[in-house]
Amino acid sequence: MEEKVLHAIQDEYPDDFAWCFGCGRLNEQGHHFRTGWEGDRTITVYTPKSEHMALPGFVYGGLIASLIDCHGTGSASLALHRKNGFEPGDGQGVPRFVTASLHVDFVKPTPHGVPLKALGKVEEVHPKKFKVAVEVFADDILCARGNVIAVVLPNSFLKER
Amino acid sequence: MEEKVLHAIQDEYPDDFAWCFGCGRLNEQGHHFRTGWEGDRTITVYTPKSEHMALPGFVYGGLIASLIDCHGTGSASLALHRKNGFEPGDGQGVPRFVTASLHVDFVKPTPHGVPLKALGKVEEVHPKKFKVAVEVFADDILCARGNVIAVVLPNSFLKER
Repeated sequence: MEEKVLHAIQDEYPDDFAWCFGCGRLNEQGHHFRTGWEGDRTITVYTPKSEHMALPGFVYGGLIASLIDCHGTGSASLALHRKNGFEPGDGQGVPRFVTASLHVDFVKPTPHGVPLKALGKVEEVHPKKFKVAVEVFADDILCARGNVIAVVLPNSFLKER
Repeated sequence: MEEKVLHAIQDEYPDDFAWCFGCGRLNEQGHHFRTGWEGDRTITVYTPKSEHMALPGFVYGGLIASLIDCHGTGSASLALHRKNGFEPGDGQGVPRFVTASLHVDFVKPTPHGVPLKALGKVEEVHPKKFKVAVEVFADDILCARGNVIAVVLPNSFLKER
């Protein structure tokens, strides 16, 4: 059975930040990744759809990269929110992050048909920049390692709209 | 108007290798990325769907990562095929690659609504391992840089099926 993240940071993104194809709750076609705390680690759980394959029986790498990407920004948001004294579920406005860089090492072919679990460790490298080290498991098999540099949403995203 | 890749390597992947969500021609729900030569560079052109957004007006990073991923494996296949004396369209069986690692630097917010163009330079680092440096443009704006380490499809993918 798939673990359920109770209080996800994405549940609290403001509406205008809730359209991400990966993790936006308002994007009907999207993946709806949801990221929360599990102790001092962050967790996102997602079961790929049947079409998300690389080869029959194995998960598509771009889906794993997408999972790591949104897990990274969600984890950074969780970490800064906690640093500010809050937890998801408190009803406080949450920090918004975008991805500056994304790296994925595909360690093993990722079997299809089981939930994927992304686990993250967050490190602040600057008050507006967080690094998230991510491991992705299928069942208990480590299938991918990655890291994300996430930065507080820059004005360039807002100015150009 | 979107540039069209005439002879794409993915058109010649064997049927059992044509199911990739990113670039498999037989995956009905997939992106159908198609990669060909443009001189000594490789090119993939794709216009994101309306739902592939990060924020309204900007393309989802996971889609860009997916584009770079499949562009990387396709480019490696093109390069080894050419080294073997063939071009897509020759009707010769083509080499099959999978991604060992993927890196993406998001340089600028990527505007939605225009075709994305991934351009690649391929370097052989080992007879079975190729490195592909990728730049992604929206119109003529460089929005992302990435690289892919692609390796010849290992037996572990086949043994476990």
